[in-house]
Amino acid sequence: MNKFWTKAVREAKPYIPGEQINQPNLLKLNTNENPYPPSPNAIKAISEASGDSLRLYPTPTMDSLRDAIANNFDLKLENVFVGNGSDEVLAFSFMAFFERGSTIKYPGITYSFYPVYANLFNVSVDEVSLENDFTINPEKFFNAPGGIIFPNPNAPTSLYLKLEAIELILQNNPHNIVIVDEAYVDFAEKSAASLINQYDNLLVIQTLSKSRALAGLRVGFALGHPDLIEALIRMKDSFNSYPVDRLALAGAEAAMSDNQYFKEITKRIINTREWTIKEMIELGFDVLPSQANFIFTKHPKHRGEKLYQQLKAANILVRHFNTEPISEYLRITIGTDAEMKRFITHLKTII
Amino acid sequence: MNKFWTKAVREAKPYIPGEQINQPNLLKLNTNENPYPPSPNAIKAISEASGDSLRLYPTPTMDSLRDAIANNFDLKLENVFVGNGSDEVLAFSFMAFFERGSTIKYPGITYSFYPVYANLFNVSVDEVSLENDFTINPEKFFNAPGGIIFPNPNAPTSLYLKLEAIELILQNNPHNIVIVDEAYVDFAEKSAASLINQYDNLLVIQTLSKSRALAGLRVGFALGHPDLIEALIRMKDSFNSYPVDRLALAGAEAAMSDNQYFKEITKRIINTREWTIKEMIELGFDVLPSQANFIFTKHPKHRGEKLYQQLKAANILVRHFNTEPISEYLRITIGTDAEMKRFITHLKTII
Repeated sequence: MNKFWTKAVREAKPYIPGEQINQPNLLKLNTNENPYPPSPNAIKAISEASGDSLRLYPTPTMDSLRDAIANNFDLKLENVFVGNGSDEVLAFSFMAFFERGSTIKYPGITYSFYPVYANLFNVSVDEVSLENDFTINPEKFFNAPGGIIFPNPNAPTSLYLKLEAIELILQNNPHNIVIVDEAYVDFAEKSAASLINQYDNLLVIQTLSKSRALAGLRVGFALGHPDLIEALIRMKDSFNSYPVDRLALAGAEAAMSDNQYFKEITKRIINTREWTIKEMIELGFDVLPSQANFIFTKHPKHRGEKLYQQLKAANILVRHFNTEPISEYLRITIGTDAEMKRFITHLKTII
Repeated sequence: MNKFWTKAVREAKPYIPGEQINQPNLLKLNTNENPYPPSPNAIKAISEASGDSLRLYPTPTMDSLRDAIANNFDLKLENVFVGNGSDEVLAFSFMAFFERGSTIKYPGITYSFYPVYANLFNVSVDEVSLENDFTINPEKFFNAPGGIIFPNPNAPTSLYLKLEAIELILQNNPHNIVIVDEAYVDFAEKSAASLINQYDNLLVIQTLSKSRALAGLRVGFALGHPDLIEALIRMKDSFNSYPVDRLALAGAEAAMSDNQYFKEITKRIINTREWTIKEMIELGFDVLPSQANFIFTKHPKHRGEKLYQQLKAANILVRHFNTEPISEYLRITIGTDAEMKRFITHLKTII
């Protein structure tokens, strides 16, 4: 505490990211990073963008990257907003669409950055309780008092909500914005981006940190009606005109244009996920039917906290949230086949 | 306008950055970029940081870069905050230190992003009128009703306020935060960073975009008492945990560690600035005594707007602000010797 701090600082409840430990032989399954390297085209583009031109500002409108993203979704440049990771896009979205003093809805178990934003931007939250199996009942989001936000697949539960359910939420909230945070959607059935042209109250947010294997580059984006995109641009240009640097712009554009590589590594991760789930069920774990690049699991006979510690002692880092009702669960990122074999092998010695 | 926009979006008055035109043979003297490339060490570090590890998040605490910055100012890691360009650092500073509804002071002519932030974060402004020669009278900042912010050298006037005057402002505002925005200070006499250990109400903000020739990399930083730095970290971690990507971290650290190169290009720019000022005075221009990498100038017989247009027609881009009382002035970035010779040669054909 310090006399110069504003109320916002005094009352802030900052987000706590997963541990970033640098240690030889550490198996890092705690922050949902991609186990495969980014597209070689992205690395090449970064190398070409580096050099003397770094003395110049990036283009503030980012048109070229926005075009590349739009092409992936049969949308137009005007439907795309780009920011410094999807977290920055989320922050701007709270500022742009969730009025101070209003009440928004999000799932009772969800991405732990949402309450941080709600607190920072003075928004009340009406948490929607999940069903006993952690699924979302779309009806609980109908006729909300204000904006709506949820991840799909949800984090950390890994559960996917079908587009039909999302459409019902959109139709039953014509005067509310509905933000679908699709950080993990490339490991799932289908993106809600296909609904953008039908629903002017839908904003879809994605990231290059997971399926495009570029967590280190900090690029995320939002898709929506041009009026929603304009709102985000107005917030960005009132905060920081150039949040994405020249190298990130170049790498992101190349990555978003290399769908062959992207599909290949995504498919591999999905296969490894299914293998891992099968093995864990054999070991007696309850594993939620994941559509993400991580699984959410508990064992009826082993405490979550203890398992987390036992794995950590063996140089295997997973994520454990010490909050109810998920304190018995572990969130485990899907690595390569070899990494998950090491993980399962060690798990067998514990169980 | 759109029914989903918050008041913040509806009332936003976004910052308008200098034109970013891509055109062969354009002489770009409008956004105060460095005419020289970044340190070769920075390019090398970026190249080494690029590759497979981009799949991983950057370190959220950025200790290594903060250490490199601290070393430049005989400060400690705890005195350093790093953000995505000094604009992001400014935005977090407004959130961290300027209470909503409070009244802050800044100069009547100043960096045009300040009113954007004041509007966004609901802060009232008591603008301090400059003297007739555009200098700042420090007494006008004494006993302010709230926070204080000013660039030093001031932008776009290019005028430097001596540290003695800044100390008087600090001493006469023991209960107010004083933010000195030193984007251009490396082209001036001395940084106020040397006062950090004496004044707990001082925050100094710098950028790598100007003197370190890395506008394309988006790195800025703040220096201050550890309590002030903690406030900024709390805001960052409530907004976006990783605003600086792996490549920017690596490049910035190398640039901040290569002072020989930095001193060499800075000295060159200062020499070119002095030559340019001399030539312009010979052409009848009034030139303010610049301590920045740009000059602020008008001609008694030529209108600012017209000169800007005439230069633009000749593929020379400078910055013109169409607001009183500076509408007759041009802000001209200092380029290389060859560039400024081309500029002066063309100016002679106009005058």
